[in-house]
Amino acid sequence: MKDLRLKAIYNQTQVFLDELMVPANDRAYLFGDAVYEVLRVYHTKPFLLAEHMARLARSLDAMEIKGVSDIRADILSSIALNEIEEGMVYVQISRGNAPRNHSFYNQALTPNILISAKPFLTHPTLKEAECGITVITHEDFRWGRCDIKTVNLLANCLAQSKAHSLGADDAIFIRDGHVTEGSSSNVFLVKDGTIKTPPLSRHILPGIRRQFLINAFCAEGNPVIEQPIHEEELFLADEVFITSTIKEAISVTMIDNKPVGSGERTIATLARKLIVDRAQL
Amino acid sequence: MKDLRLKAIYNQTQVFLDELMVPANDRAYLFGDAVYEVLRVYHTKPFLLAEHMARLARSLDAMEIKGVSDIRADILSSIALNEIEEGMVYVQISRGNAPRNHSFYNQALTPNILISAKPFLTHPTLKEAECGITVITHEDFRWGRCDIKTVNLLANCLAQSKAHSLGADDAIFIRDGHVTEGSSSNVFLVKDGTIKTPPLSRHILPGIRRQFLINAFCAEGNPVIEQPIHEEELFLADEVFITSTIKEAISVTMIDNKPVGSGERTIATLARKLIVDRAQL
Repeated sequence: MKDLRLKAIYNQTQVFLDELMVPANDRAYLFGDAVYEVLRVYHTKPFLLAEHMARLARSLDAMEIKGVSDIRADILSSIALNEIEEGMVYVQISRGNAPRNHSFYNQALTPNILISAKPFLTHPTLKEAECGITVITHEDFRWGRCDIKTVNLLANCLAQSKAHSLGADDAIFIRDGHVTEGSSSNVFLVKDGTIKTPPLSRHILPGIRRQFLINAFCAEGNPVIEQPIHEEELFLADEVFITSTIKEAISVTMIDNKPVGSGERTIATLARKLIVDRAQL
Repeated sequence: MKDLRLKAIYNQTQVFLDELMVPANDRAYLFGDAVYEVLRVYHTKPFLLAEHMARLARSLDAMEIKGVSDIRADILSSIALNEIEEGMVYVQISRGNAPRNHSFYNQALTPNILISAKPFLTHPTLKEAECGITVITHEDFRWGRCDIKTVNLLANCLAQSKAHSLGADDAIFIRDGHVTEGSSSNVFLVKDGTIKTPPLSRHILPGIRRQFLINAFCAEGNPVIEQPIHEEELFLADEVFITSTIKEAISVTMIDNKPVGSGERTIATLARKLIVDRAQL
C-alpha cells in the first residue's frame, strides 16, 4: 500500500506535513498575517499556474510582504513528492517571525513559505457536481479587503459552519443588499440566458475560475455581464452556480430553503465542462 | 545577570517562548481562528483579572470555541515563572488542530492555550504618557465583529504600519464618518468638560480600561457620555485620548497633522491617574 503521509515543503525543506511545527511567533499565528493560494492539480500538472502566481504576487504586494522568490519549482516538487495525479496544492506565505507587535513597519522580516499538496483519491466534488448544493444567504461581515487572499478567514469559517449547522452546504454573502461571494467561491447567476456575476471590487476575490469562465463564455459567444447582483435576483434566477479552484463550477439548487428556478442546470454544466475540458489539454 | 529568556505555558506545559513551536495545522495559523487577551501586571498581580476572564469567556462563546477550562492558575504561574514585578501577560486560545477546512461544525477539536508573560524593564509608555502621541485617521476596514477579541488582526496591523510609515504613532479608525477605535485602543474625547466615547457595538471592542474609566469618571461626578462621535468632532475637541491595557490612557496631540484643541490634557491625565491609582491598591 502506498505511503499516504503527506509531504510538504517548508522554507525549502522537505517535511512530513503531520509533523510540521512552526514558530509561535510567526505572524500568521499571532495576527493571521499571511496570504495563500490553492491550486488544482489535473494529471500531475497545476492548472492555471501562471494565473495563481500572478494573484499571489498581487496579494504579497498589497500586504507589503517582501523577499519572496519564485516558488514554482517547489510547487512542482510538492506534486512530485506526493506522487499526485489528481489533487491540490496549498501555498501559504506569512510575513515572518517577530515578537508580537501589530506594526511591521521598517521590520526586515523573512517570510515563511509553506507548500503542501494532497492527492484526491476520489473526485472531491463529484457528488456536488451531480446533485448541486444548498446554500444560505449570510450577511457579509468580512473585512474591507476581500480582494486580497489572506488567511484572515474567520468570517468565512463562521459563515460556512453556520450553513452546515443549518443543514446547508455553504453560504452566499450579502453586503448592503447585494451578492458578493460564497464562503470560498465566486457566484454566478443566469436569467433569461444572460450570465451575470458581481464586478470586481474590494469585497470580491478575483477568482481564477471566475476570470477563466468570463473569458471562456465570451469565446462561446455568451459574454458574462459583470454587474452588481441584488439579493432578490438570486430568487428570480433560472440558475445560480458557484465557482472555485476545487469546486470548479457547481449548481446551487436551494437558497434559504427556496428552490432555484425550475432546476435548470444548462449553463452551470457548461461552465464545469469548459473548465474541465481545458484542464485536460 | 538575570536570565531574560521568557517562559510560557503552552497547553499546561512550561516552555521557553523563543523555542515554542506549534502545529502547522493549528487553525490559528491557517485561519486566524483564535481569541486572545492582554493583561497588565502591576506589582506582580494581573490587574482586573476577573474582567479580562469575563471578556475571554465571551469571545470563546461568540466563536463557539468549547472545552476551555479555567486558566487563572496558569496566568499566575506565567507571572511567577518570569518573576514579573511590572509587565504583561498574553493569552491566546485557538480552536485547535485540524486538516484545513473552513467549517468547524461538528468537529470535536481541542483548543490550544498559549500563555506568555514578559516583564517591563522600563515603563512601556512613559514617554507617550508624558508627550502624548500623534495619530492619523484611517478608514475602518475591519470585519463586522470587532467586539470579539480575535487574532484576525490584519486590518489593525496594516493601519498601524501605515501610521508609522507616515511618521505618526497610531491610527484612529473611522467607519461611515464616525470614530470607532484606535488600532489597538478605545477612543475618548473631551469637549467643554463633557467626556464622550462611542457606544458599544459590533464595531467596537468592549475595552476593559474603557469600562473601568466609564465607571471611575461616573464615581468622580463626571459621567462619560456613550454616544456616536462624528469624525469632525475629533478636530473640534478640547482633548482626545486613547485607552488600552498597556497604554492605560494617553493624550492624542495631533490628528492628521492638526493639533488637538489647545494642548489641554487635564482629563487624559486624570484618566491615567484613575487607572494607575486603582492598580496600586
